[in-house]
Amino acid sequence: MGKGGMAAAVFDRKLSYVRDYPRPEPKPGWARIRVQTAGICKTDIEIMKGYMGFRGVLGHEFVGEVDRCGDPALVGKRVVGEINAACGKCAWCAQGLGRHCPHRTTLGIVNHDGCMAEFCVLPQENLFVIPEQISAERAVLTEPLSAACEILEQLTIKGAERIVVLGDGRLGILCAWALATAAPDVTIVGRHPQKLSLARWRGIKTSLTAERIAPGADIVVEATGSGQGIVQAMTLCRPRGTIVLKSTVALQGDVNLAPVVINEQTIVGSRCGRFKDGLEMMRNFPDMPLEKMITGRYPLERVEEAFVCAQKKDALKVLLDIAS
Amino acid sequence: MGKGGMAAAVFDRKLSYVRDYPRPEPKPGWARIRVQTAGICKTDIEIMKGYMGFRGVLGHEFVGEVDRCGDPALVGKRVVGEINAACGKCAWCAQGLGRHCPHRTTLGIVNHDGCMAEFCVLPQENLFVIPEQISAERAVLTEPLSAACEILEQLTIKGAERIVVLGDGRLGILCAWALATAAPDVTIVGRHPQKLSLARWRGIKTSLTAERIAPGADIVVEATGSGQGIVQAMTLCRPRGTIVLKSTVALQGDVNLAPVVINEQTIVGSRCGRFKDGLEMMRNFPDMPLEKMITGRYPLERVEEAFVCAQKKDALKVLLDIAS
Repeated sequence: MGKGGMAAAVFDRKLSYVRDYPRPEPKPGWARIRVQTAGICKTDIEIMKGYMGFRGVLGHEFVGEVDRCGDPALVGKRVVGEINAACGKCAWCAQGLGRHCPHRTTLGIVNHDGCMAEFCVLPQENLFVIPEQISAERAVLTEPLSAACEILEQLTIKGAERIVVLGDGRLGILCAWALATAAPDVTIVGRHPQKLSLARWRGIKTSLTAERIAPGADIVVEATGSGQGIVQAMTLCRPRGTIVLKSTVALQGDVNLAPVVINEQTIVGSRCGRFKDGLEMMRNFPDMPLEKMITGRYPLERVEEAFVCAQKKDALKVLLDIAS
Repeated sequence: MGKGGMAAAVFDRKLSYVRDYPRPEPKPGWARIRVQTAGICKTDIEIMKGYMGFRGVLGHEFVGEVDRCGDPALVGKRVVGEINAACGKCAWCAQGLGRHCPHRTTLGIVNHDGCMAEFCVLPQENLFVIPEQISAERAVLTEPLSAACEILEQLTIKGAERIVVLGDGRLGILCAWALATAAPDVTIVGRHPQKLSLARWRGIKTSLTAERIAPGADIVVEATGSGQGIVQAMTLCRPRGTIVLKSTVALQGDVNLAPVVINEQTIVGSRCGRFKDGLEMMRNFPDMPLEKMITGRYPLERVEEAFVCAQKKDALKVLLDIAS
């Protein structure tokens, strides 16, 4: 491998481990990160099915060390990074809503090579230095935990609400954990006894079938990623209650929204969150069992094997170790 | 017609004018109303297509005079009435949310003979005495205008919002009018030049195509009753903006809600409103051109003809005159 090359997991119609992918150069205001650990996310698997038409280095969940950067204080620091790079010029950016910038690129998802490589680049302002007491296994979950925390930022939760989370995938479990920090009555519904069992924390109840759950929940979080999830959510949610949509995939299909109108329910679309919030939650709840999420760890050259593992029914989070 | 009979428009697989339908008797706490004018609503037309499986006297929009009632002060008063009759006993009713009572009946829609008849009955507490200055033509629109006002009750509108209403039917126009009392920048999008022309009030802009509307609206109201309405609403609404769903019909079909998640939009289901609010708006805005809505008036015995008129493309509100 020459000076300008690096190892990378590249998706271009198919996934390959490439030894001499061009090493990225940071633009002014950007930093280059030497990636230590990357996580495989459901979005990566969707991309391999054609989502967003993305081609390039996969991956948007990482922990790494700043390698090159305009700010010398950052060099050598262990960081995680927010994945959207706003244009910084449009009206959205001017309002501080760069996360919704229509011209943004997204690490490993939209027009921006990802982090399943020895190096990746991101705007300096996207980086968050990780406190020493937070392990790499925990820190690599900053992005999905922040997405779960986004619900707490969007809704006002008083603590007396009955909350149901549909879906025992990684995002469903993280949503249940984030919500359990704010309200004691949280039930997670899923299909996998093993996943449900590790979801138990702070009194979270689990159920293998939504039919046993009494309707009339105040808040229902849809994190199944299946078209039936929203139908179940409409049934379980009380009139004037709130349904939070967390999954973007597979909501296509026949969905009759009439019950939402009749029962005056509110549907809140909820996407990524602020890393600040996820990191703060990790600090405030050191007993949140994030490590339990790790299903497997693979070196980068075994990326294809890692993706097979990540697609297994019981998999939650599979990590790629890139540099130590 | 005997003492116990009355004329009525009855739906039982087909619509008929019946001369000797049983005259309803009010239960304790209920009132009997001699109907003067009834309105034909889109819901009535949906019922004739099978909606709610309803059979019986059609109609839920009326102005009438109290005929029999426990409260002597009400007898002889000109009234309109809220259409849901709550059970008064369940937890919802105890919380003052009888409009969401799961055991409620609904005038002319669910287990409750409607108002396209010489008489109908409703709980006394559902009735609102109409001030003299409000004509029958205006008062009969209390129910749909209140449904439009419900948006103002559900959202906090500050006045600087850019609002788009999709649909130039009666409900769409009333929503635009109600919203124009709270915010100056309202655009209504429809397909009927004649309806759009009469929708103009308080600076409301009109458009025959949604393509000409700049995306990024703060609030989009879906009142088209078509499956494409919500897709258009997602496109026109800004990230973190609000989509109000007003129509219960025909939202079935392939609806991909992923943009709602990606753009963190909020969808608010919005149903009926409080008559108090609709009547207050009529009093506060006597120049709101409600009379323009009246497309035709028919005597009850010509109810079939009236329904043909109500289903015409340019029809807005067709009235049945029952007693003077």
